[in-house]
Amino acid sequence: MAPQYAPSLRSRLAPLLLILQTGFIIIAALCFENKEANKLDRKSFLHFYPEFQDVNVMIILGFGFLCTFPVRYGFSGSGFNLLVAIIATQWALILNGIDSWYNTKIIRIDLKSIIKAELCAVSALISIGSVLGKTNPVQLTLIALLEVTGFALNEWLLQTLLKVRPPNSIMLLHVFGALFGLMLTWILYRDGSKQGFEKEKFDRKSGLFSMLGVVFLWMFWPSFNSVLVEDDQTRLEAVCSTYLSLAVSAVTAAALAVLSSPRGKLNPIQMQSCVLAGGAAVGVSVSVVQQPWEAMALGFTAAILSTLGYRYLKTHLLIAFECHDTCSVLSTHGLPGLLGWLAHLVLQIKYCDDHTVAVRFAVFHICTLFTTVSLSLSMGIITGGRFGDPNKTKNASMIRLSGRYLHFPNLVVRNLRQKN
Amino acid sequence: MAPQYAPSLRSRLAPLLLILQTGFIIIAALCFENKEANKLDRKSFLHFYPEFQDVNVMIILGFGFLCTFPVRYGFSGSGFNLLVAIIATQWALILNGIDSWYNTKIIRIDLKSIIKAELCAVSALISIGSVLGKTNPVQLTLIALLEVTGFALNEWLLQTLLKVRPPNSIMLLHVFGALFGLMLTWILYRDGSKQGFEKEKFDRKSGLFSMLGVVFLWMFWPSFNSVLVEDDQTRLEAVCSTYLSLAVSAVTAAALAVLSSPRGKLNPIQMQSCVLAGGAAVGVSVSVVQQPWEAMALGFTAAILSTLGYRYLKTHLLIAFECHDTCSVLSTHGLPGLLGWLAHLVLQIKYCDDHTVAVRFAVFHICTLFTTVSLSLSMGIITGGRFGDPNKTKNASMIRLSGRYLHFPNLVVRNLRQKN
Amino acid sequence: MAPQYAPSLRSRLAPLLLILQTGFIIIAALCFENKEANKLDRKSFLHFYPEFQDVNVMIILGFGFLCTFPVRYGFSGSGFNLLVAIIATQWALILNGIDSWYNTKIIRIDLKSIIKAELCAVSALISIGSVLGKTNPVQLTLIALLEVTGFALNEWLLQTLLKVRPPNSIMLLHVFGALFGLMLTWILYRDGSKQGFEKEKFDRKSGLFSMLGVVFLWMFWPSFNSVLVEDDQTRLEAVCSTYLSLAVSAVTAAALAVLSSPRGKLNPIQMQSCVLAGGAAVGVSVSVVQQPWEAMALGFTAAILSTLGYRYLKTHLLIAFECHDTCSVLSTHGLPGLLGWLAHLVLQIKYCDDHTVAVRFAVFHICTLFTTVSLSLSMGIITGGRFGDPNKTKNASMIRLSGRYLHFPNLVVRNLRQKN
Repeated sequence: MAPQYAPSLRSRLAPLLLILQTGFIIIAALCFENKEANKLDRKSFLHFYPEFQDVNVMIILGFGFLCTFPVRYGFSGSGFNLLVAIIATQWALILNGIDSWYNTKIIRIDLKSIIKAELCAVSALISIGSVLGKTNPVQLTLIALLEVTGFALNEWLLQTLLKVRPPNSIMLLHVFGALFGLMLTWILYRDGSKQGFEKEKFDRKSGLFSMLGVVFLWMFWPSFNSVLVEDDQTRLEAVCSTYLSLAVSAVTAAALAVLSSPRGKLNPIQMQSCVLAGGAAVGVSVSVVQQPWEAMALGFTAAILSTLGYRYLKTHLLIAFECHDTCSVLSTHGLPGLLGWLAHLVLQIKYCDDHTVAVRFAVFHICTLFTTVSLSLSMGIITGGRFGDPNKTKNASMIRLSGRYLHFPNLVVRNLRQKN
Repeated sequence: MAPQYAPSLRSRLAPLLLILQTGFIIIAALCFENKEANKLDRKSFLHFYPEFQDVNVMIILGFGFLCTFPVRYGFSGSGFNLLVAIIATQWALILNGIDSWYNTKIIRIDLKSIIKAELCAVSALISIGSVLGKTNPVQLTLIALLEVTGFALNEWLLQTLLKVRPPNSIMLLHVFGALFGLMLTWILYRDGSKQGFEKEKFDRKSGLFSMLGVVFLWMFWPSFNSVLVEDDQTRLEAVCSTYLSLAVSAVTAAALAVLSSPRGKLNPIQMQSCVLAGGAAVGVSVSVVQQPWEAMALGFTAAILSTLGYRYLKTHLLIAFECHDTCSVLSTHGLPGLLGWLAHLVLQIKYCDDHTVAVRFAVFHICTLFTTVSLSLSMGIITGGRFGDPNKTKNASMIRLSGRYLHFPNLVVRNLRQKN
Repeated sequence: MAPQYAPSLRSRLAPLLLILQTGFIIIAALCFENKEANKLDRKSFLHFYPEFQDVNVMIILGFGFLCTFPVRYGFSGSGFNLLVAIIATQWALILNGIDSWYNTKIIRIDLKSIIKAELCAVSALISIGSVLGKTNPVQLTLIALLEVTGFALNEWLLQTLLKVRPPNSIMLLHVFGALFGLMLTWILYRDGSKQGFEKEKFDRKSGLFSMLGVVFLWMFWPSFNSVLVEDDQTRLEAVCSTYLSLAVSAVTAAALAVLSSPRGKLNPIQMQSCVLAGGAAVGVSVSVVQQPWEAMALGFTAAILSTLGYRYLKTHLLIAFECHDTCSVLSTHGLPGLLGWLAHLVLQIKYCDDHTVAVRFAVFHICTLFTTVSLSLSMGIITGGRFGDPNKTKNASMIRLSGRYLHFPNLVVRNLRQKN
């Protein structure tokens, strides 16, 4: 049984999607060109295609089924994820091509540009994890569009002002997505109600689907981290590093999940959140992690940090800031991403012989983080404020909808209705 | 709990499978040779292997789990799909090799011939979607054998008489499979009973498995469309076109599913049927779709056409012609396939400079469709008549079986029993 | 709902995992080096990466979800499988590198060494299948460590004493894992109780997850068998042979499952056990199977043997030797592995022109099997005795735990508690 939509949703979601889609097609007719320029690019087919598919699987299947754990939200979770991922990818394809369009009036579409666009869409999927079950599909679509715009802007700033290399700037998606999502849920929730959320429910079968999503993310994460690396040598290292880091973080996460449970239970939701921490940490620092033990130590630290975040920070955020983070994106992506940023800084300085170069790198690297954090926080607040301001009738009614629209007995934003 | 088979089924299915399998092994011992001829072919390992696996995943997992949505049929659906896919592939391997056997007394088995055979098997899997839950495994096996024979015959006719290139002729599998299946269910059903079928039931969990199948088909469809393309350049274009077309058709299908529902619900079965329309349409016209916007527009039109087919044509066929199409193969594969054929015609003529060449192509192209349609319809009627004729006692008893054999409260061919 | 752990488990599992993981990181810091030496190795990225991912999918997802069929064990089954697979892989990475460390004080980590380590981990996963649901995660972890040690020792013996080529020695993992697991469950069970186990329960939904695991194993088995083959030509042949063999064994297994059921039902658990037999048989003999019909005949025989094993040997072992094999690893991996060994012998002798060479090969080949079997049996007995000796209080309490720890109404080792 699909959730029952509010009647007014019908008049909003369908036109929104159709208008967006028609717009994308018109832009494509005007600017897109499907042409590989030369022989070298053609060779890239062999290079990229299997990894493109792996990334595809992670985005559509991994994130899609990761979202199925709330027992009453399973089906819609995977369906909406597909929708949001596709729209965000198309939008990112356009935004990433603006630069090239400005110069040549043509946006080239090839495998690499689609992969880049998909990675941008991932940052939107991460953000959406934090408001899962509290928003309707119309809101999800608009949030994804704004989030991708913010991320593309951030990427452009980093690449033009701070000369950050593209793979490094894109990998900050973990930090950007998590902080954006956090602000979003904070604003939406604060405006709505003062009453705490009950715990998310899940049952065994939806838990297995969710496990399926985690397992797909876990398996294909090496492709995710290595797909943008140009050089074969470095790419191989990236794959091995990511694999080792994920392995260590999975074991550590399981150990800590048992340790932190009062009855020695293996809390599956906690484990699932923290198993992937190593992948995000290595992803952000992939260009400098060279030795296996560095990757493994990074995975170990990331899992500990992520578990601490899940156990203490999540509750703390809920109680102190009234900020409810459904999928714990802060501990799954945010903290490991920050750790990866730190590891990048430390390792790069360690490898620098020259003191001046090291200081210069450190300043640039700190500026990179500062830009990303401030842009993600401000974009998150703006996006949240856009939907969450109770004075804007149109948007408030959207949120009101979510009470009727969702069938979460536990997660319902029921109080919004009472207030308005 | 597996469905309880009629006792007499035991004495039929097992011998049939064992005889077929022994026959295939004997033929293999006489004709097959597992030998790559030269260095160039060897290089093809790198080219083909990942895409071979993707196609494999689509056939075994995608189609297999797509069939799990009827709540009481899940397990058997995926099991029988595996069985039918394998038998059809082996049979296609033999049929596709007859030509080479005629000349050299040897059928070469390599990755490419297995991929071709798997694509032929897909046409059988599509047909079987339309009689899902109304036939027993013995019938499914025989239908698959006859369908693959028909498809191989069609391919041979197109390639020898009309000089259609192999990738183009194979991609007509969507049209062939859908029309064959439609005739099949029409004949089987008409002979059986005048009473209408109730709606197919599905529940949330089996819906998620079905979603899993759809998502796998969606993700790997670019491999499906590009695997037979020889040239790297064209293959890359095929991948990008298919991806864009699928993206657009998924968004459009979701929008139309919300729009066409009286309460604004997102009907998952409808969405699942129409999400893949873009892939089928681009598949049939893959050799001429060059610009991204063409692929996107094709995906958009295919999703609209498929949704219209699902909403109106399916009901119309049931009421007017008493033709019940379980998996809506007509709207998922048939209509988008025809659209792709039309797009091929239009785009090819557009790219032609010479008027005479264009007309000549149009005539040949129309003949291609005519051959495919007439062969698929007649083979479907013959196959259906073979199983559906109530005068043939042996076959009628097979159908009678299906009443007892299947545990569908809704889909049971209960009336067959009453009549006979 | 995760199973409720005995409180004392908390104090054991978490420290064990953390200590192991810290130890692995320290060893990595001392010995591992993530460096590809030369250009040729770099090219191997393109060769290996997609197959590496396929093997990864088989291990994490295939074996993980294969274990979900016991209805109350689904979630933990997949979680523990992930844990055990990762720990076993890391341990195998260290053990496989001892030789290189002895010479150069460095263990090179690249894709190939990770793949080899994963294949060693598979032998542990197979063993664990036989004690599934009768052991707690602490035991599973220790069993995996001992099993991998034994397998690495066996591999080293075969390669240094008998000059067996690495791919051939590693592929004996099916035989080694199955016999090790059988001894393990025999010792653990004999020491525990004289009372028979009831049948394993499963329901339709957990059955579908299990089917998912089987299907993933089925699809990617060609990669499993070909990943270690160096030569492109041979690898292509390995892929085709494995595919054909799996196809034939799936059809044969289904036919026999129907035939051997008194009511003509398709027993899904039996079918799932036997569908994969062809893959294991061809895997062990992959270097000599050249013609398609040989592979197909091997698949046919393997499926028959596996079905006979499942129907008669499993019950016989339970009644005569009180040896309960949860996942039927003997019939799924053991018997087909032995068949593959025999096929290797027969085919190699057939291809030998020289009589002396043939005899010499036969002697070596028999020694190979003898070493593997005796080592696996003795290691299994040692490992089982270690955990199963009721006089060792510490370990006996571990087993006692499993009664409380597991929520199997049918599989509970309830009597252990009564006895002690």
